[in-house]
Amino acid sequence: MRPDALTPELADVVARTRDFVREVVVPAEPPTGEALAPQELSRLRSLAKEAGVWAPVSSADFGGLGLPLPAWSPVLQEAGYSPIGPAVLHCMAPDEGNMHMLSLIATPEQQQEFLAPLVRGEARSCFAMTEPHPGAGSDPSALSTTAYLDGDTWVIEGRKRFISGANDADIAIVMARTPAVRLPDGQERPEGATMFLTRTDAPGWRVGRQIRTTERAIAGGHPYVHLEGLRVPTSAVLGEVGEGFRYAQVRLGPARLTHCMRWLGLARRALDVALDRLEHRELFGQPMRDLGLAQGLVADSVIDLETSDAIIDRTARLLESDPRAGSRMSSVAKVHCAEAIQRVIDRSIQLCGGDGVSEELPLVQYLLEVRPFRIYDGSSETHRWAIARRASSDRRREVEAGTPRLDLVDGTDDGAEHGGGRA
Amino acid sequence: MRPDALTPELADVVARTRDFVREVVVPAEPPTGEALAPQELSRLRSLAKEAGVWAPVSSADFGGLGLPLPAWSPVLQEAGYSPIGPAVLHCMAPDEGNMHMLSLIATPEQQQEFLAPLVRGEARSCFAMTEPHPGAGSDPSALSTTAYLDGDTWVIEGRKRFISGANDADIAIVMARTPAVRLPDGQERPEGATMFLTRTDAPGWRVGRQIRTTERAIAGGHPYVHLEGLRVPTSAVLGEVGEGFRYAQVRLGPARLTHCMRWLGLARRALDVALDRLEHRELFGQPMRDLGLAQGLVADSVIDLETSDAIIDRTARLLESDPRAGSRMSSVAKVHCAEAIQRVIDRSIQLCGGDGVSEELPLVQYLLEVRPFRIYDGSSETHRWAIARRASSDRRREVEAGTPRLDLVDGTDDGAEHGGGRA
Amino acid sequence: MRPDALTPELADVVARTRDFVREVVVPAEPPTGEALAPQELSRLRSLAKEAGVWAPVSSADFGGLGLPLPAWSPVLQEAGYSPIGPAVLHCMAPDEGNMHMLSLIATPEQQQEFLAPLVRGEARSCFAMTEPHPGAGSDPSALSTTAYLDGDTWVIEGRKRFISGANDADIAIVMARTPAVRLPDGQERPEGATMFLTRTDAPGWRVGRQIRTTERAIAGGHPYVHLEGLRVPTSAVLGEVGEGFRYAQVRLGPARLTHCMRWLGLARRALDVALDRLEHRELFGQPMRDLGLAQGLVADSVIDLETSDAIIDRTARLLESDPRAGSRMSSVAKVHCAEAIQRVIDRSIQLCGGDGVSEELPLVQYLLEVRPFRIYDGSSETHRWAIARRASSDRRREVEAGTPRLDLVDGTDDGAEHGGGRA
Amino acid sequence: MRPDALTPELADVVARTRDFVREVVVPAEPPTGEALAPQELSRLRSLAKEAGVWAPVSSADFGGLGLPLPAWSPVLQEAGYSPIGPAVLHCMAPDEGNMHMLSLIATPEQQQEFLAPLVRGEARSCFAMTEPHPGAGSDPSALSTTAYLDGDTWVIEGRKRFISGANDADIAIVMARTPAVRLPDGQERPEGATMFLTRTDAPGWRVGRQIRTTERAIAGGHPYVHLEGLRVPTSAVLGEVGEGFRYAQVRLGPARLTHCMRWLGLARRALDVALDRLEHRELFGQPMRDLGLAQGLVADSVIDLETSDAIIDRTARLLESDPRAGSRMSSVAKVHCAEAIQRVIDRSIQLCGGDGVSEELPLVQYLLEVRPFRIYDGSSETHRWAIARRASSDRRREVEAGTPRLDLVDGTDDGAEHGGGRA
Repeated sequence: MRPDALTPELADVVARTRDFVREVVVPAEPPTGEALAPQELSRLRSLAKEAGVWAPVSSADFGGLGLPLPAWSPVLQEAGYSPIGPAVLHCMAPDEGNMHMLSLIATPEQQQEFLAPLVRGEARSCFAMTEPHPGAGSDPSALSTTAYLDGDTWVIEGRKRFISGANDADIAIVMARTPAVRLPDGQERPEGATMFLTRTDAPGWRVGRQIRTTERAIAGGHPYVHLEGLRVPTSAVLGEVGEGFRYAQVRLGPARLTHCMRWLGLARRALDVALDRLEHRELFGQPMRDLGLAQGLVADSVIDLETSDAIIDRTARLLESDPRAGSRMSSVAKVHCAEAIQRVIDRSIQLCGGDGVSEELPLVQYLLEVRPFRIYDGSSETHRWAIARRASSDRRREVEAGTPRLDLVDGTDDGAEHGGGRA
Repeated sequence: MRPDALTPELADVVARTRDFVREVVVPAEPPTGEALAPQELSRLRSLAKEAGVWAPVSSADFGGLGLPLPAWSPVLQEAGYSPIGPAVLHCMAPDEGNMHMLSLIATPEQQQEFLAPLVRGEARSCFAMTEPHPGAGSDPSALSTTAYLDGDTWVIEGRKRFISGANDADIAIVMARTPAVRLPDGQERPEGATMFLTRTDAPGWRVGRQIRTTERAIAGGHPYVHLEGLRVPTSAVLGEVGEGFRYAQVRLGPARLTHCMRWLGLARRALDVALDRLEHRELFGQPMRDLGLAQGLVADSVIDLETSDAIIDRTARLLESDPRAGSRMSSVAKVHCAEAIQRVIDRSIQLCGGDGVSEELPLVQYLLEVRPFRIYDGSSETHRWAIARRASSDRRREVEAGTPRLDLVDGTDDGAEHGGGRA
Repeated sequence: MRPDALTPELADVVARTRDFVREVVVPAEPPTGEALAPQELSRLRSLAKEAGVWAPVSSADFGGLGLPLPAWSPVLQEAGYSPIGPAVLHCMAPDEGNMHMLSLIATPEQQQEFLAPLVRGEARSCFAMTEPHPGAGSDPSALSTTAYLDGDTWVIEGRKRFISGANDADIAIVMARTPAVRLPDGQERPEGATMFLTRTDAPGWRVGRQIRTTERAIAGGHPYVHLEGLRVPTSAVLGEVGEGFRYAQVRLGPARLTHCMRWLGLARRALDVALDRLEHRELFGQPMRDLGLAQGLVADSVIDLETSDAIIDRTARLLESDPRAGSRMSSVAKVHCAEAIQRVIDRSIQLCGGDGVSEELPLVQYLLEVRPFRIYDGSSETHRWAIARRASSDRRREVEAGTPRLDLVDGTDDGAEHGGGRA
Repeated sequence: MRPDALTPELADVVARTRDFVREVVVPAEPPTGEALAPQELSRLRSLAKEAGVWAPVSSADFGGLGLPLPAWSPVLQEAGYSPIGPAVLHCMAPDEGNMHMLSLIATPEQQQEFLAPLVRGEARSCFAMTEPHPGAGSDPSALSTTAYLDGDTWVIEGRKRFISGANDADIAIVMARTPAVRLPDGQERPEGATMFLTRTDAPGWRVGRQIRTTERAIAGGHPYVHLEGLRVPTSAVLGEVGEGFRYAQVRLGPARLTHCMRWLGLARRALDVALDRLEHRELFGQPMRDLGLAQGLVADSVIDLETSDAIIDRTARLLESDPRAGSRMSSVAKVHCAEAIQRVIDRSIQLCGGDGVSEELPLVQYLLEVRPFRIYDGSSETHRWAIARRASSDRRREVEAGTPRLDLVDGTDDGAEHGGGRA
């Protein structure tokens, strides 16, 4: 949703966010390559609460702004204009996606225990799904972590990897494979995947070796997590037993899209850096902004930014009006935005020359922040595969419903070579 | 606007258009490379009127459906699914853009004389702006056709080129440079460009040599037109004297976008051809739809289609809410769509192998239809230049208004190499 | 081989070819979209013989120049600078590839009967391998045409498609599947594919429906051919029974590359058209050659031309020194050149604006000539598949031979998550 | 030059280099993100000398292998297969390019003093040309460092930036602008740029603030250098006074190309990492190496590698046979290779998923090593500009020499609209 299509109330949130990020957050950014100090983060978070821009997409019941989904994009883009903006405004992965899922699926008791402190920023969370090879990486059906029911307690065993934020998390959502089971309340559930809520100080939760990736904006790293007989009560099941993969999709559709929104904001920042450079430099006796080859790079970046913005908006509306179609469209949005965003930052580096690849400017760090996005939340290749399969099956259904095939060629499929034209 | 976001009335128009095109128009398409016979076009147009899908974007006062701009895209995409669809439904360039401009700018008398027969399909029109080198090609400021006032008659002299539809046109809009002038009513007008309405049977209008281009869907070709003392009354001025370029923008913003919509429909058709092919062929012992390299081509095409759809929708909404911003965004949409549409068709050709490059399938003809779109209505390069200049000037204004520059590097701009950090 | 690396004798052939094509052939080209008249082709061929540029890559024993393979590229690029050049100089597909194969594989008697008239230009030939679906298209193992031995006569039954030049061919090479067989001379041969030589006036050879493709430069079209009990003597077997696929590779490696050479010449022509245009036009008050966005297109085209030239040269040398490696490299060259050549022509169209997409300039016709090359001789996708498989198997062999794997990651493959580093 | 085209002696050097790098250097690489310890570098350099692979492209008079230029590529690619390989084998920028220039231009006395210790690895060097804005960055004509003659001493004043290796350099080559001058020997020299040799312990040479860029392989960083009255004798002029830019081209042509060679080796390494991964992982029940989308990425990388190899080889031969043409071709090679190499590494990251963007694998570090190469030694945009200008002027000269223009269109340039065809 473009700011001009927003209600005055929502437009005001966008404007406040924009001002706060540009006037308070940007000047507080740490030097390139360094992390934001925890006490500085706390200070900025307090200011965000005062400014009324705290937790914009999280439940208003617990202190967030509770913006409707189609309004998320302009706000999260403004937040993402600073690499530390989403952390300051508390709309950063993985907390943001976890809060969204809890607000949709958790029971009131679970929300009170797990969601409330998250929204208030008093607790941090992680989402423990990915596993080491040959477990569930891009292919969740390969889940090797298991849970079994021991009386009214679930016991979870397994190993997770790339668990973003696990180092600092107080709360975790764990995905495990559960067998066909009769629950204590007598329900029968088939084999499937189930999500569990746990505190990370529970015995049996152990954070392992840290994996360093290229981005720095997500506090807490991406370590291994060992689940060594982790025990949780049956009340810790999030949603229904066996429905974990379905909920993962509930989480992933919007979560993919909020990544797009935040990183799109950072791409806008990168282009602004380059535009400022072009404005103030000359080459071969001309202002750089007038050099055609530079203009070509700028224009391609604008096109990338605007088409990303448009497909995000389209997908956000769909996620509201038709969640299944929206989830499918989120694959398209994710691939396009992840690649477009990286291109924009790369071109900005190129436009800034030697400074672009040095720490004199923050652009290389921006590149490192966004490079993994082509891989996580489903790699571009996995999404392309899914997009193509859906296109094929949609078309197949149309043809099966009576739409004539369009590929028929005389003499090939029907033998009527001499039929005389395509009549 | 996606069908699901439409009112029931508009959704019904889309559905009727879709059914009519697929059930009536597609089966009536001529063989690849051949033109639709005029009497067949007439027959189909009558059916379109009967089916209530005639002139969807033209004035309801004169017999069109008068759809609001944000609803054009789904309808024109359905029309464009057949290369003859827009001609049959009477939403084809150049008539469609001319009708739109006349409905916005023409006087009631002019509308009665020129617009009414156009909307009813009883007359055809052309738009005579482009000139031979070194006149106004991509660069309208170089206009060399001139008009001078002789009493209360304008006399137009010049030569035009690439005047689409001129062969069959009954009505023309002519752009000419006019001097600073005192009008018969006493008004003083500065030098500028002016649009004139004329009938093509007027003395002084002569259609010259035909220029054959690659597309076949626009009846009437793209000939030279010689204006040899063409005389029109002062009442034939369209809008104000000297405001021609401003009106050209009024015409071009939506006209660019309706091209995008129609060709996007054709690109969807091309992908459907390829999907049908993949469904029914095997290669190396596998259904082609399961071959990863083919899936990659399909997915890239879906991404191109959906991002084009989204940026068209975004631009159409803007053209309504903020025409100037919409006109600027139409540059972005035009470049993206023109290139994306060609890629989709090219990939479909590739997926169909030898048949793809033969006349066994219509795909090469589709490619020829859309190839010029990267050039007309402003080439991709001209739009990129404009997009980059606007990005630079927008950012410059922000910085001038107080936003801090983001490109400052120690020791480069301020000499303070040892200033110690980026504070 | 670049002209500067040639012997003086070969450099002289290149220079003569260049002069002949530019001074004699180019001025004789038919108008855009029209075919060269047969008598004009004959006249030009006589001039080519007189000028000593006839059949440059064909056997000197029968009247060709017999150039060594690494010298082909500069000559064929000069020939290809005109779309009718290769036909005039008699180095055009399919004759050129057929002559090459016959000179390598045919017996002296076969050469006398079939090769000699071909080289002299008194006969034309075709290569009948491709079949209608589900026969051998891109996937030769699916060959459905069969031959069986009846005494000392082979009887061939089947249907071929896309047989370039079949309309005008006097001579054909036919690929058919042969069963395990005891030959009249007592040899036992396993099941396989076999190549047969035949005259096209033999009973049982029937040319079927024409398939029109986009290119116009290959006389004779691409029809169906019906083999209806075609009988040929055992002496008509080309090479050994059952070795047809191996010979097809012999033919295809160089044949792919000579296509690259010829079309690269045409791409150079296209760029010259655009450069001339840029030199003589102005836009926005600047010579177009100085506009950065145009310069970007020109530079990308030069890069495409030079890298194509270099990989062709590399492959030609390899085909001489190590035919198997050369044949593999020809996949790389083919994909790169086919795509690069099309890009160059497409950019030249773009640089020429409206004239670029009209028949005022020949560029669109050039595009249509080269578009199929991304599909025939193995589509880009089929070659990419083959290239990837070879890269995988080459690397696998290296690792099996003791090279350490480079992908090992702690904690993933060996469980030693806490092993402390990558030692 | 491909190994198979080498003399046995040269092939042996390639094989020895390959074995040494893979068996000695690769196992000694530091963990991802860490620098090689100086003592370990010394140890490896000793081993390189023992193995007969030391300083392969440097003068044999002083201890290098003195390979001829067309043989450099296979050796430097093997060296570059390890990111520390070129430093170990002493064929790393900037020393390698400096040694090359000194061997071509320096006097015997200068060679003894400056070149000999460099080749032996006893001294390090830097090349001080680039300056802070608005001095000579990509645009050398803007050189702001100046030198004036004071008796028989040159006094140099100025500020340099991005001087790779300056931190550890013992020897420097400094580029400065010199006025029209009468030399002590009576020669008159016009204004121009001049190169000077100096030791870095000379008064007036001061290394300033370090600029951190993304690559780690060049020891010594890229600091500012302040020239504060640096005095050197007239015997320290490298070559002729005023000829500095010409020599810079002498240096840059091959230096650009050796960068291409080394980084191409690293790109091969990256692809090998990915191939090993694909060989040992499964996704969706298939070996990853058989997934078409992965195969597409692999094939595109092979095409990038082989075309880069071929254009490097082409350019190296030209630099020997026709240095001016070779220097021009080096622009083409540089742009293509810099972009192709980055694409290969980026695709390898993508193929390795989460590990690809973590420090579990070295691929992100490889990306950071090569990203600046699209900027230094002339950015891709600057080279594109130069390539386009040369293409335009080459073609202009052809036309001026009598070749007919190819862009003439009836009715546009000559007014003969009705001339009837393109005769």
